[in-house]
This record gives sequence, C-alpha cells and structure tokens, in this order.
Amino acid sequence: MGVLALLPESVAAQEVLPSWNESATRQAIVSFVERVTTPGSPQFVSPAERIATFDNDGTLWCESPMYVQARFTMDRIRVLSASHPEWTTQEPFASALRDDPHGMMALGEKGIFELMAATHAGMTVDEFRESVTSWLKQARHPRFQRKYTTLSYQPMLEVLEYLRAHGFKTYIVSGGGMEFMRPWTESVYGIPPEQVIGSYGQLAWEFEAGHPVLRKLAKVGLIDDKQGKPIGIQTFIGRRPIAAFGNSDGDLEMLQWTTTGPGARLGMIVHHTDAEREYAYDRNSSVGRLDKGLDAAPRQGWLVIDMKTDWNVIFPELRDR
Amino acid sequence: MGVLALLPESVAAQEVLPSWNESATRQAIVSFVERVTTPGSPQFVSPAERIATFDNDGTLWCESPMYVQARFTMDRIRVLSASHPEWTTQEPFASALRDDPHGMMALGEKGIFELMAATHAGMTVDEFRESVTSWLKQARHPRFQRKYTTLSYQPMLEVLEYLRAHGFKTYIVSGGGMEFMRPWTESVYGIPPEQVIGSYGQLAWEFEAGHPVLRKLAKVGLIDDKQGKPIGIQTFIGRRPIAAFGNSDGDLEMLQWTTTGPGARLGMIVHHTDAEREYAYDRNSSVGRLDKGLDAAPRQGWLVIDMKTDWNVIFPELRDR
Repeated sequence: MGVLALLPESVAAQEVLPSWNESATRQAIVSFVERVTTPGSPQFVSPAERIATFDNDGTLWCESPMYVQARFTMDRIRVLSASHPEWTTQEPFASALRDDPHGMMALGEKGIFELMAATHAGMTVDEFRESVTSWLKQARHPRFQRKYTTLSYQPMLEVLEYLRAHGFKTYIVSGGGMEFMRPWTESVYGIPPEQVIGSYGQLAWEFEAGHPVLRKLAKVGLIDDKQGKPIGIQTFIGRRPIAAFGNSDGDLEMLQWTTTGPGARLGMIVHHTDAEREYAYDRNSSVGRLDKGLDAAPRQGWLVIDMKTDWNVIFPELRDR
Repeated sequence: MGVLALLPESVAAQEVLPSWNESATRQAIVSFVERVTTPGSPQFVSPAERIATFDNDGTLWCESPMYVQARFTMDRIRVLSASHPEWTTQEPFASALRDDPHGMMALGEKGIFELMAATHAGMTVDEFRESVTSWLKQARHPRFQRKYTTLSYQPMLEVLEYLRAHGFKTYIVSGGGMEFMRPWTESVYGIPPEQVIGSYGQLAWEFEAGHPVLRKLAKVGLIDDKQGKPIGIQTFIGRRPIAAFGNSDGDLEMLQWTTTGPGARLGMIVHHTDAEREYAYDRNSSVGRLDKGLDAAPRQGWLVIDMKTDWNVIFPELRDR
C-alpha cells in the first residue's frame, strides 16, 4: 500500500489483478475495495465486517465437463462396487459404473447428492479426508490433463489475494461437499477449513478401540445451495457479507442477501464464455446453469464477468505440485 | 514477546495471567503455550492449527443462579404473555411467569431449550439480535447488581488474550444459543461472531416488503452440548482443537475430542469452589452440573481449576459500560 501510493496511477493499477484486462468489471472490483477500505470514505467498512463469499464450482475452479466431486464419486463407486454386485443394475450406481456422465447428470444435483451420501457415509471424517487427498493426487482432468487442484482460475486467485490484502476475510460458500473441499482449499486458495461452508451430512460421535471418532452419516445436515447459501452464511458466519461471487443460479440467493444490505455492496457472476480456453455454457447447461442470474444481474446491479474478454489468463501457470 | 524475553523470568511470569495465583494449573497453561509455540520444540504446532475452544456458561461468565439465557427467556415470556393469556396455566410458561427458577430448572436443559425455541422463533435474526442487545443493556444480575456482560471471569479473559497473543484462534463452543451470544462476544471476549458455535434453530429464507430476511424457526439445527460439541467443532471449524476449557459434564466430549489427538494437548475444567466471591457447586447442581468430569479429570489428564485458590480476582473491575 505505502509503496503503491507513491507510484503513478497506471503503474499501480497494473500491479493489482494482473490477469484481468482493463474493463468495467475489473474497475468495479478496485473501486469497491477503495470505497470500503479508505478511512474517511462515506462507505468505509470496518475490517471485521469485510466478509466476502465465493461459490467454488465454476467460480473458483473448473466445473466442466462435470463437477469434480461427481468425478470423485464415480471413481469411488467403481472402487466400492467390488463388494456391491447389485449396483450394476441399480440407479444411480449403474450410470456411474457405465461412466455415463449424461445419465448421471440427468438425475440432477439432488440425485448426485444422494449418490454422494450413499458412497461417502459410514467412514470417519479422517478416513474421508484421506480418500479425497489421495484421489486428488492421482486424478487428472480429461481435457486439460492436469490435477484438478491446478484448475483454479488465476484471476479469481488474484481477487482473493487482493481482498485479503485489504483486510477482507474470504469464505467459500458452495453447494459442494464441505468435507470434500476442506482438505485442499488452504493450499489452493489460501482459505482455511474454518472458512469453508458447504453441503454436509450429519455426524455421529462414536468410539473405535477406545478412541472417539466422528462418523459421517447418510443424513443431510445442510444443502448449501440456493436459499441454503444465505442460511449457511448466517449460521456459520453470523455476519452479512459485503461482497459475493458466484456463477450459477444456485448463487442467486447469496448474491441477493449480500447486495441488499446497507452501504457499498459488490455482487459478481462469472460467465463462462470461453470455449477455447475453458468452456462456454449458461442457460441450457446441466452443470452450473446460469439462466435466471443473467436476467437478474442488470436489475440487481450485479456485474457479469465475461471470462473470454475480462481474463487474459484462465489457469495458473503449472509449477511442480 | 521481544521485551518479555529480556526480563528476568519472575518478572515476565508476573506479566502473564496476572489474575492467576502461582499454581500448577497456571503453570500448565504457560508450559503448554511455550511447548506448542516455541520454534524447534518437539511439540511445536503451526499457528493455523492452534485452535482453542471454550465453553461459555460457567467457563467464561457467571451461570448462577440460573443461565443468563434462561433469565432472558423468562423476561421475554413476561413481555409476550400479554398476548398469550393461556400461558398462566400452561407449563413451562406458567413457571416462567411465576418467576419460579426452581420449577423451570426442574424441566432440565431440554425443557429450557424448548421454552427458548417457543419464545425465540418467528422473528428475523436481526430482530432477535436487537432484542438480546436491548435486554442486556437493562438487565442486572440479582446478586451482584451488575450487567451480565460485566460478569465474565477476569482470569479467563486473560487466558483468551494470552492464547491469541501466541497465535491461537479462540472459539466459543457452548450449549447456549448461538444467536444469543454473537451480539456481544466480540466486545466482551474479543471473539467475533464467526468464532461462536452454539445451539441453534433452523432458518427460513423469506421476503418481507420485497427484501430478503432470515427468519428463526422453532426447529432444532444443533444442540451444541455433550456429543454435539465435537460435532459442532468438526462442522464449523473442520480442525481438532489442541486446547479446550469447560466447567460441566456437558463439556466432557469436547475435552475428550480435544485431548485424545496427537501431540501436546490441554484440557481444563473450571471448578466453582468460591461461594463467597462467586458460587460453589458441582455434583448436585441443576445448573452447570460437574459430576462425571470430576471423576474423569485425573484419568484423562485434565486439570481442574480451583476458582477459590487459583484466581486472585473473579470479575473484571467495573468501568463505564
């Protein structure tokens, strides 16, 4: 901050959000942060109240051609099917075993969640964490042939870092499984597990060989999607965010809750418009559908990020991981 | 830190936890913090993993002669009874209206929670926050004639501060209502709302005059007591604490979960032994019963804080509040 203040404005601007092209959306982020963090500004917000929430799938990392957790689930079903011969004819397991994303997606997000619950439950939280971690080490994205954890969006990593450098606390608020995200969000996004809110199942307190364990049950605790997002935010954080980033209709209520509060507010939607470098989809997609959001954005004052024209880089440069 | 390191050990010791008498319990806290925070120590713990959890009622503030939230609930029932004439003969409302703590306590914690749910639900989270804040401004403790928020324990405030000064993140994990605590924990304990875990009801996403609100429902989300404490910790934090402080049998599972993990661990129980300066109670109390905990402590390596001999001050000096 001190050094940047001494530089000509154009140079300072280049230091911030370098993977963003000069555009109205980039300018909106910078302007918002300046307004809420400049002491004496009429829209100044105390550091404690600087809460920013981010959807994960399609907002912070690639969700196509299928949600990463769906891929994890299908791979896991294949492993578990050795002791479940009945799954070859029983949906949704049969589609998963045929490696049929289309059949699986046809079940909708709720179907996917049921599949996840059926396959993720029964183990302790430590065992589940280990299964996620080891899967992420060997799994590769079918098109990009990179580990999924390297397919975060570089421009969004810069937004996270930029906000934190200005006193914001950054949270994930995702429809995805909370315990699926927490093992890796700290190293990939700089977001610690206690700032990751997601869908979760209920837990049971049990003893194993005299030691306490927490076992994952096949009972829903929270579906952190749509209206579940503001509910999850209130329950976990107890403060209303002043900035929120999403990419699909599942994020509408979070954006609405965030941007209808008093004072300066920032609501943004990542629009997937770049089939060449990533994917292009919106109103008719079974993954990350963005339909109502595109209509609501201009009315609600939400800014739509055009991936193709706003971002000069999509994924982080590959380093040794 | 830098300055303390230059001082003779006895002087430095006096700077830390000044309201604690020299004792094994005080020494255990200091020794634990030194072991987990000294770089190169075999028990060193990275700052991110330095999670400490505290029960609230009876551990951080006075819970006698009745839980503060029970008093709030009774006062609230009196207000609401104007439009509920049937409550004069209907339990548990009748006991509350007779201002009969004994009759109310006889219903047990579950009864109290039901009473709370019946009286707390139906309003928005903002309205509830306002009702808590305004009640706390005028309510006084019947014996000490002080605001409840001034009846925190000075020695525990020092522990919170001491831990945070050494990189710990301090959390409340209480059987009390989460939304009841969050409005004041930041100013009283330095613990922000997002680090307050407690019992909570489910929320509903609704619209009021075109604006979204979150309404409190009379449906349990989590009873954050006994086994609900480690479950709440895993759900909200996703990390296992390395230090935990409680005072009643409702804290046993939290202490167990905390102290059975690998590496250095600290489990402590506040024992109310000072009828003169505060209260003396344990195995037979209807509020904050400590029975199994007294038996388990020596077996589990938990340290019992003797309020009467370990603390040279109980409550903070009164300033203008």
